[in-house]
Amino acid sequence: MNGPYRVIPGGVTAAKGFLASAVNAGIKRLKKPDVSLVASEGPATAAGVFTTNQVKAPPILISEARLRGGAAQAILLNSGCANCMTGDAGMRDAVRLGHAVAGLLRLPDDRVLMASTGLIGSRLPMRKMLRKMPELVASLRPEHHTAAALGILTTDLRPKEFAMERVIAGRTIRVGGMAKGAGMIAPSMATMLAVVTTDARVAAPVLRRLLREITENTFNRMTVDGDMSTNDCVLLLANGRSGVSAHPGSRALRELRGMLHQALEHLAIEIVRDGEGSTRLMHVEVIGARTDQEAQACARHVACSSLVKTMLAGGDPNVGRIAAAAGASAARFDPRRLDVFIEGHRLVSGGVVGRDALAAREWLRRPEVRVRIELHAGHGTGWMRTCDLTEEYVRINAHYAT
Amino acid sequence: MNGPYRVIPGGVTAAKGFLASAVNAGIKRLKKPDVSLVASEGPATAAGVFTTNQVKAPPILISEARLRGGAAQAILLNSGCANCMTGDAGMRDAVRLGHAVAGLLRLPDDRVLMASTGLIGSRLPMRKMLRKMPELVASLRPEHHTAAALGILTTDLRPKEFAMERVIAGRTIRVGGMAKGAGMIAPSMATMLAVVTTDARVAAPVLRRLLREITENTFNRMTVDGDMSTNDCVLLLANGRSGVSAHPGSRALRELRGMLHQALEHLAIEIVRDGEGSTRLMHVEVIGARTDQEAQACARHVACSSLVKTMLAGGDPNVGRIAAAAGASAARFDPRRLDVFIEGHRLVSGGVVGRDALAAREWLRRPEVRVRIELHAGHGTGWMRTCDLTEEYVRINAHYAT
Repeated sequence: MNGPYRVIPGGVTAAKGFLASAVNAGIKRLKKPDVSLVASEGPATAAGVFTTNQVKAPPILISEARLRGGAAQAILLNSGCANCMTGDAGMRDAVRLGHAVAGLLRLPDDRVLMASTGLIGSRLPMRKMLRKMPELVASLRPEHHTAAALGILTTDLRPKEFAMERVIAGRTIRVGGMAKGAGMIAPSMATMLAVVTTDARVAAPVLRRLLREITENTFNRMTVDGDMSTNDCVLLLANGRSGVSAHPGSRALRELRGMLHQALEHLAIEIVRDGEGSTRLMHVEVIGARTDQEAQACARHVACSSLVKTMLAGGDPNVGRIAAAAGASAARFDPRRLDVFIEGHRLVSGGVVGRDALAAREWLRRPEVRVRIELHAGHGTGWMRTCDLTEEYVRINAHYAT
Repeated sequence: MNGPYRVIPGGVTAAKGFLASAVNAGIKRLKKPDVSLVASEGPATAAGVFTTNQVKAPPILISEARLRGGAAQAILLNSGCANCMTGDAGMRDAVRLGHAVAGLLRLPDDRVLMASTGLIGSRLPMRKMLRKMPELVASLRPEHHTAAALGILTTDLRPKEFAMERVIAGRTIRVGGMAKGAGMIAPSMATMLAVVTTDARVAAPVLRRLLREITENTFNRMTVDGDMSTNDCVLLLANGRSGVSAHPGSRALRELRGMLHQALEHLAIEIVRDGEGSTRLMHVEVIGARTDQEAQACARHVACSSLVKTMLAGGDPNVGRIAAAAGASAARFDPRRLDVFIEGHRLVSGGVVGRDALAAREWLRRPEVRVRIELHAGHGTGWMRTCDLTEEYVRINAHYAT
């Protein structure tokens, strides 16, 4: 999957024919951008993956419906307000806002996708937002990618952007993207907001399969706090401007898959690294499970354990907690064969904690910590990324609404 | 279930014919009791419920095996060391310790049950402990119940004891117990350590069913941090000394069931109240689910959500988090019919967050907060108890091993 591509600047507008902009529309009290727009200069195929939460925000429902056609040309995003649990009124707000942007872009309404993030249960400040839409559309430029990445942040500390290119048979294809994460970040669904663009030409059904498969192996394998949002989505636009067609069976599609995997992987890791209160990243790898599914369940259980995550926060070697979390998972194994490695050092061997477990302190205090769990029950493998659970996480989330 | 019983002092030795003691055997650095013993003066029937974690400590394996016979007369407990993931050596330690106590009590080895709690992966300090066993047995007295309750604590702030009595047809039966909780407290299994005693006479198979049923509705419906321990167990002894026989179909059994429910309920609530870093208790009730199972899954998901628990810590009304957690659970419902009440006030109505949600601040800051979730999908009900997730929880658990 790790082909020789080149990382480039440009984020979500690095691919040819994509523009972005952001404005402050007064949703947040601070004068930071809180509404972003990403648009393709010409028609594009589109795909999305959405939260599996039963409580879904109106923008999610709208984007999901509009993507059935497989085409879209613009994405309107806002932070500071999730426009969720706002009833029919919230749905009308989202439709009206999308209609305003579509009109300014001279597009049919259903070519505009939408995403919102922020506090659940409050309404969008429609008057203020509608007033800003002309400025938002007028300022669409390739160079505004970072402004757009800033406009979707909530408690994130840093914007998250990534872009790369690769030459295939003399022609260059590019993939770029941006994301926001921070809290309510949980596995087993499309997580957070992310927009990914490419100038490859890809048919909508192919794009859909590609996005689903890659999301499963990247965004769906990370967790910050185990809480699933009502507004998560990953949206992907492909406008074909590179002139390279990625059709099933082609080398271009194989390369594009690799590039998209890298891009989403990069954004996923950035989200975990910038998780609320996060100071440290942990890779949890499980091997030797009866099935891949059991390995993944085990990796997830360990990655979600409050005791494992607080251990990581303190850099406090208590490997029994990793074993206890593995044992509480759905993976079946013989605890007398369990091995646990931290940064390549075997700390649990045949179900017994070794005497040098305290030496793990040094390894646990690295900015990235690799944990490997060997169950010796079969050939199933799985992995997860998580961050530590710190006092700062609690501070942030004890006072979010007020 | 709430019969007119009388709360009495005496904890785990309140029932006739039970004795307790505790000593400091040097497992913990501080001079606090760290080994406790509970014994019946005569033979007793016995039952236990154990962690469903696949990684089980030797004392758990020993007690589980010994309880197959349905009889036991003493329970040896220690804190400060879980004697878990210690391999064959840890198993030999536990057997040897039990043998020493059985010899001093003139009992066969298999009448002595064992339980340990504390750090996973370290060995018991056998020499120190064996030296203290004669003193432990010699100091068995009814009045040492609080010492015994203190001897099993880890990060708990308070000992947890409860006892009650009730007169049935002119004769008094008593139920008493003690527990320790604090961290690694999670639902869906027998949680933590608890010892419950009664002077009713109950056949072992009846006792076993009774304990399993009541544990399911009390200890298994609480959570502190969602982490399942390797050492959890609830042990119940019935020595018949009251002269009252609780046989199937009898009024005595009905009354005993009610008393045991009250006792375990009381201890479970005390555990949540004294959860690591806990400042506030939350009761989560779910009604109107398609089935009781779905209602329980929904209550559990809400009670385990880090975002709900940090909201509770801050007394910060963000009811969207409750709805998001319900929506992410296995319970199926129409989000447009969802109602959420806090302390009896409807804050979400038909899936829409009301404007007075901010008024919830006052209700959320009470020491006990009742949350009711109505799914309007059927008649299933469920409930859970949980506490808030505070910075103190993180502080305690970031530095537990060191």
